[in-house]
Amino acid sequence: MSKLIYVLNGPNLNLLGKRQPEIYGHETLADVQKRMEKKGDALGLEIAFFQSNHEGELVDIIHQAREQAAGIVINPAAYSHTSVAILDALNTFEGPVVEVHISNIHKREAFRHHSYVSSRAEGVIAGLGTLGYVLALDYFAQ
Amino acid sequence: MSKLIYVLNGPNLNLLGKRQPEIYGHETLADVQKRMEKKGDALGLEIAFFQSNHEGELVDIIHQAREQAAGIVINPAAYSHTSVAILDALNTFEGPVVEVHISNIHKREAFRHHSYVSSRAEGVIAGLGTLGYVLALDYFAQ
Amino acid sequence: MSKLIYVLNGPNLNLLGKRQPEIYGHETLADVQKRMEKKGDALGLEIAFFQSNHEGELVDIIHQAREQAAGIVINPAAYSHTSVAILDALNTFEGPVVEVHISNIHKREAFRHHSYVSSRAEGVIAGLGTLGYVLALDYFAQ
Amino acid sequence: MSKLIYVLNGPNLNLLGKRQPEIYGHETLADVQKRMEKKGDALGLEIAFFQSNHEGELVDIIHQAREQAAGIVINPAAYSHTSVAILDALNTFEGPVVEVHISNIHKREAFRHHSYVSSRAEGVIAGLGTLGYVLALDYFAQ
Amino acid sequence: MSKLIYVLNGPNLNLLGKRQPEIYGHETLADVQKRMEKKGDALGLEIAFFQSNHEGELVDIIHQAREQAAGIVINPAAYSHTSVAILDALNTFEGPVVEVHISNIHKREAFRHHSYVSSRAEGVIAGLGTLGYVLALDYFAQ
Amino acid sequence: MSKLIYVLNGPNLNLLGKRQPEIYGHETLADVQKRMEKKGDALGLEIAFFQSNHEGELVDIIHQAREQAAGIVINPAAYSHTSVAILDALNTFEGPVVEVHISNIHKREAFRHHSYVSSRAEGVIAGLGTLGYVLALDYFAQ
Amino acid sequence: MSKLIYVLNGPNLNLLGKRQPEIYGHETLADVQKRMEKKGDALGLEIAFFQSNHEGELVDIIHQAREQAAGIVINPAAYSHTSVAILDALNTFEGPVVEVHISNIHKREAFRHHSYVSSRAEGVIAGLGTLGYVLALDYFAQ
Amino acid sequence: MSKLIYVLNGPNLNLLGKRQPEIYGHETLADVQKRMEKKGDALGLEIAFFQSNHEGELVDIIHQAREQAAGIVINPAAYSHTSVAILDALNTFEGPVVEVHISNIHKREAFRHHSYVSSRAEGVIAGLGTLGYVLALDYFAQ
Amino acid sequence: MSKLIYVLNGPNLNLLGKRQPEIYGHETLADVQKRMEKKGDALGLEIAFFQSNHEGELVDIIHQAREQAAGIVINPAAYSHTSVAILDALNTFEGPVVEVHISNIHKREAFRHHSYVSSRAEGVIAGLGTLGYVLALDYFAQ
Amino acid sequence: MSKLIYVLNGPNLNLLGKRQPEIYGHETLADVQKRMEKKGDALGLEIAFFQSNHEGELVDIIHQAREQAAGIVINPAAYSHTSVAILDALNTFEGPVVEVHISNIHKREAFRHHSYVSSRAEGVIAGLGTLGYVLALDYFAQ
Amino acid sequence: MSKLIYVLNGPNLNLLGKRQPEIYGHETLADVQKRMEKKGDALGLEIAFFQSNHEGELVDIIHQAREQAAGIVINPAAYSHTSVAILDALNTFEGPVVEVHISNIHKREAFRHHSYVSSRAEGVIAGLGTLGYVLALDYFAQ
Amino acid sequence: MSKLIYVLNGPNLNLLGKRQPEIYGHETLADVQKRMEKKGDALGLEIAFFQSNHEGELVDIIHQAREQAAGIVINPAAYSHTSVAILDALNTFEGPVVEVHISNIHKREAFRHHSYVSSRAEGVIAGLGTLGYVLALDYFAQ
Repeated sequence: MSKLIYVLNGPNLNLLGKRQPEIYGHETLADVQKRMEKKGDALGLEIAFFQSNHEGELVDIIHQAREQAAGIVINPAAYSHTSVAILDALNTFEGPVVEVHISNIHKREAFRHHSYVSSRAEGVIAGLGTLGYVLALDYFAQ
Repeated sequence: MSKLIYVLNGPNLNLLGKRQPEIYGHETLADVQKRMEKKGDALGLEIAFFQSNHEGELVDIIHQAREQAAGIVINPAAYSHTSVAILDALNTFEGPVVEVHISNIHKREAFRHHSYVSSRAEGVIAGLGTLGYVLALDYFAQ
Repeated sequence: MSKLIYVLNGPNLNLLGKRQPEIYGHETLADVQKRMEKKGDALGLEIAFFQSNHEGELVDIIHQAREQAAGIVINPAAYSHTSVAILDALNTFEGPVVEVHISNIHKREAFRHHSYVSSRAEGVIAGLGTLGYVLALDYFAQ
Repeated sequence: MSKLIYVLNGPNLNLLGKRQPEIYGHETLADVQKRMEKKGDALGLEIAFFQSNHEGELVDIIHQAREQAAGIVINPAAYSHTSVAILDALNTFEGPVVEVHISNIHKREAFRHHSYVSSRAEGVIAGLGTLGYVLALDYFAQ
Repeated sequence: MSKLIYVLNGPNLNLLGKRQPEIYGHETLADVQKRMEKKGDALGLEIAFFQSNHEGELVDIIHQAREQAAGIVINPAAYSHTSVAILDALNTFEGPVVEVHISNIHKREAFRHHSYVSSRAEGVIAGLGTLGYVLALDYFAQ
Repeated sequence: MSKLIYVLNGPNLNLLGKRQPEIYGHETLADVQKRMEKKGDALGLEIAFFQSNHEGELVDIIHQAREQAAGIVINPAAYSHTSVAILDALNTFEGPVVEVHISNIHKREAFRHHSYVSSRAEGVIAGLGTLGYVLALDYFAQ
Repeated sequence: MSKLIYVLNGPNLNLLGKRQPEIYGHETLADVQKRMEKKGDALGLEIAFFQSNHEGELVDIIHQAREQAAGIVINPAAYSHTSVAILDALNTFEGPVVEVHISNIHKREAFRHHSYVSSRAEGVIAGLGTLGYVLALDYFAQ
Repeated sequence: MSKLIYVLNGPNLNLLGKRQPEIYGHETLADVQKRMEKKGDALGLEIAFFQSNHEGELVDIIHQAREQAAGIVINPAAYSHTSVAILDALNTFEGPVVEVHISNIHKREAFRHHSYVSSRAEGVIAGLGTLGYVLALDYFAQ
Repeated sequence: MSKLIYVLNGPNLNLLGKRQPEIYGHETLADVQKRMEKKGDALGLEIAFFQSNHEGELVDIIHQAREQAAGIVINPAAYSHTSVAILDALNTFEGPVVEVHISNIHKREAFRHHSYVSSRAEGVIAGLGTLGYVLALDYFAQ
Repeated sequence: MSKLIYVLNGPNLNLLGKRQPEIYGHETLADVQKRMEKKGDALGLEIAFFQSNHEGELVDIIHQAREQAAGIVINPAAYSHTSVAILDALNTFEGPVVEVHISNIHKREAFRHHSYVSSRAEGVIAGLGTLGYVLALDYFAQ
Repeated sequence: MSKLIYVLNGPNLNLLGKRQPEIYGHETLADVQKRMEKKGDALGLEIAFFQSNHEGELVDIIHQAREQAAGIVINPAAYSHTSVAILDALNTFEGPVVEVHISNIHKREAFRHHSYVSSRAEGVIAGLGTLGYVLALDYFAQ
Repeated sequence: MSKLIYVLNGPNLNLLGKRQPEIYGHETLADVQKRMEKKGDALGLEIAFFQSNHEGELVDIIHQAREQAAGIVINPAAYSHTSVAILDALNTFEGPVVEVHISNIHKREAFRHHSYVSSRAEGVIAGLGTLGYVLALDYFAQ
């Protein structure tokens, strides 16, 4: 039986591939979802894929993951830097968590260098583009 | 006629008693509500009890309290440390406010030592477990 | 054909004119909306007016503005100081942005002196009361 | 047999009720003592009540409490912010400690926001006036 | 009878329109003066227009305004960030003050984010180009 | 009838004139007392002169001054930089307070640049040697 | 033969007694000058009295003092906090310097707590009103 | 023809698998090398594998990579936090760089949260154990 | 004739060996005194041994040492981090001073990393347990 | 035809060679001017030499340089550390700028370690005495 | 059988006794080695003595100590303040570590007050001259 | 007889002229050496020229300079910002030291604004390109 992995995407990621394509490329979040599902199939992992611009909804989804998921891949986007609520929600989750950032946040403004989620996550992948999502699955398959 | 007290609970408190029982005990938020209602009855205070993981909803409820409540007991949880919006909402409320934290936030990570709400609340009770909620009612009964 | 300007109002602004009238006056947000529509008519600008206490909703509305608006006037209120998500949403918007604060935030508590939105906005108007909203339209009409 | 609770009061609290009555009210420290004794009787707690302006004496009294007391209620007043010696003394005490502040120290000067004692105490009650002392007993009775 | 408004310009603004036109445009300070006088005529405001590279002279002019002016519009330029003397001079002036910056100082070097004058001014307009000067008059006409 | 002025000297000042005479001169604290009494006689001020190395005793003496003194001259010495208790004691005193330092504390180690007492005192005299004590009396005689 | 003392007054002090009389009283700078001259006569000190709003002029006057003055009394006002140039000018002067502030700068905004001049002056008198100027002369007479 | 990837390991990594096996597991650096070579074979990447405890040698090897390598995988270990020299060496390299940390440095001491190399690397993988090295190759194969 | 060495122990050290024996061992302060006296005999040093929980008393004892002692061994305990008064008292002592800490303060909370006394002492020994006291005598015997 | 180089000297440099000769030597500013003129003749550079104690005048002279000079050598002295106005003036100048300090400012007080001008200048020479001025000409001759 | 103690000396200590003898005395590192060997003989400890100016070599030697040594005495000199690599190497060593500094680093420049090694070492001896090395052996003999 | 000047070059300078020629030009370190030797011949200075990527080797070379050199020119490159060991080595050298940076480090990242070496060097030349090396010789020839 395949393990269920929750994949959470934070604010503004619904616009992936539609804004600043010179930076983020033309791949949309739907493309990322498909790519993960395909990789998941290969690794025996089932993918539950979410995006929300609402901090509270992301908390709600993490609570739901507590009942169902074997692991969480999360790109908290802007909430990485400001949300203690998401950190606390992840603290109630007992499985492993991998944090993914499409860009290398350490090359951007100083306020993006710190992520509350990093102090909870087992691992962090930043700057490898959307490939980071896929590689996170390798960690759960290990 | 009994005075109405709004009791607000911030993010992740819906899981009280269900997560980390070795720390937080087995008492759920529903248990806290019952305990407060019982104490309220004794003190002539009516309790309106809320929980939300959404910062905006907490703001909405505080606005509603402006019309109805004689006082507010609030455990802002993670939003204590990050929400100016809740602080501003409380600033529009004219009655007394008591802030409650189940754990002693001064013993935890440094970012939990500061609460925006504390600069507005009449009083703060931290670390006394769920008893803190009940003691807050004594303040309103005084 | 008139240009469409989105006007966004952040948390607690729904209470404008209803709280602390000695500070904020008796003008409500509906009054501001009317005043802007009138000025917009004069300048050939159409006004789409919003208020939300929810950070995520403000992000959603900014995304909607990407398709429709020629410019954004935003009073992020408390979210000025805490929301990277709104900053990122505005970064996906290509037109000009003017940030408005009714009070002079530089005269208030230190944590109100910094606004994430200011690093993205073309211009900032603070402390001119609700007149600031109206003057922002002059900028778009220019 | 009733449990013994030590109640310690730091510098300048001997003047309670005698200075700035518009802020602190007309209740003296003797009144607080009586109120606690009465509440203690109801809860089966014996009260040993102390006040000193001397940091070293407060350390001495805490050492004495090690032999005798089941718990400590302490209002360290100004020494909250400056005394590592009192913190270390409390660290040698094995029972629970509740820190009480009559005013809400988070609304006052920045140097009053930090208390060394808070990092040791089980709980903290601030801003509830002299009621805070009485509520602390509820914690020990629990 | 029209009200007299003092308009003060700080260091290097004498070069407006002559340096870095790609940033500041081709409008000179004389052009700004004319534009303000025209708008002043429409609003019933008389304009007294000054520029100086000398901190002490700007202090002198503000002292002179105390006797004559109903309000002050000031672009303190570099002295915004370094001059307590100008702040103190403005503190001796009893009428309203509007601070104007042609560029959005919040998008520039960190040392430009703080202005001593902002803590005194009723309002601040930044980043709206030379239009900011004109809009400041609307505030005085209100 | 002459007004009573309390003169308080903090820790290590009992050694004045006996240590490091090349810095502090050969005048002892007894000499200072005599000089103040003589000046007090001339100005119609009675002098009550104290020295203690104990923070708590200094608090006690200030409490005693509340009943008796028209003003306080205090050289808190090392306690200037560390004692909130003395600050709070002075806050209970209603008359004027002048803080005196024999050396210019702004020329010494950084931790001596800040004095809690300065935020309470009406005036501060530093670096004028023991003359500072005498000049403080002029202020009370005024 | 009497010693010559230069008395320098920084920016905005020309308005002394004319602004905010409830704070600064009704005594003008001319009154201060007369009071110092009278005291100087008694002590055998000649007074050369200056005021300027210009940092550079204050530097020039200090250079002139090098040739003529036995000591300097300086109230640098706003330049206390911002002028390294005045500090350097005083460093070229070999006689004693006393810094005077009419108000107690330690009770005001944080940026007024530091004075460059204090690290050079022999002594500092703050908060004793205009009496501070007169007492400074006692130091030179000693 | 396969692309050459340099893999650099910083100080103390020669002890991998030999110290604190409960944390780092029993896999040695030689095991990592084999695992990478195997993965490299699959992806058409040739691996050149290095370890040094010497900052200068790591700089030398990066210089050598300039001539030969298509990309660099680097685990700078302790030098992440202290070496500008390695950052500068990587700045002379034109190909992509992926930084790998076996543990999640964001969960450790504060001085490990900042890495000079992160401001240069295309991507960063932390906390995924030795799997991070292998995943870095996927990035180069992409 | 043997040299006299003062040995001073700060607050809470009277409980040595009685609290937290798993950390501090079972050796009491009396044991330390005996061990030092024995070592002193061997080295020709006489030991005067003191403990106080009162900052002021420690200052008094240091003053007494000025008349009698050839050197001071001091374990200021909590006062290391907060007492400028003890630093100033030691500054009046002309002989050598060795500071001893039983535990390694650099491994504990950040506020214990700084000691005012260290800036005065000739030497510092930390973390060697009660052996540190004995080794300090070797320094004086040298 | 020789290129014109403006040489600007900031506050207190008019006293060069007249004050603290043990530090600054006996060479006056006039000597420096002659030395530069002589070196300028050799290199085909014409020297325009200025000194002012007034920040505003230095700004004025830089504006004048915009029309005439091929390069600027500036020793901003005290204004290095405090003047954004001079930085902005230099930003309007299009040619190269070399900043010179006679002493090594990095060995002096911390507030002298930062110079606003350094962020604009092409090069900085500090601590080489008056030779620094002469070497700056080599840069323009290159 | 005697226990082996590694003694490591960091950069510039090869010059001990040859530079600044007025500070460091005339004892060379070879003298220190002899003194330790002699003391070691008395205590049943064998000494392996090293010095290197190379951070990487010190790491290598610590790795070698892992196989052989019962304890380490280390004077990391300048690397105390900058080397995380040496800290990490010591973290792989399981025996006790004593850090020695010849001078009292707390009396020197601020950047010398912090040592990475102190957070790992069992004990720290500073300021006792070369005696510190010898006393460290007493700790291992205990 | 000509004086010997040691010229030391820190990490990555071996690549000068080979990397980023658009920034650093096409001049190699060998070219710089030739240019210095030629200038040295003219000034009667002999040049000993070194480059190393190893901090420890740079320390070794400075030790060697103690025996032989009349002065040191050093471009510590990245080690400027991180090496206390090189600072300490230079502190053992008795002759003058001139620090050279090819680029203006004050225009680059904040961590490059501070150099440990600057607090030891007689002079600093930054931003004048490789000409800075040559001008440093003028200082020694003076």
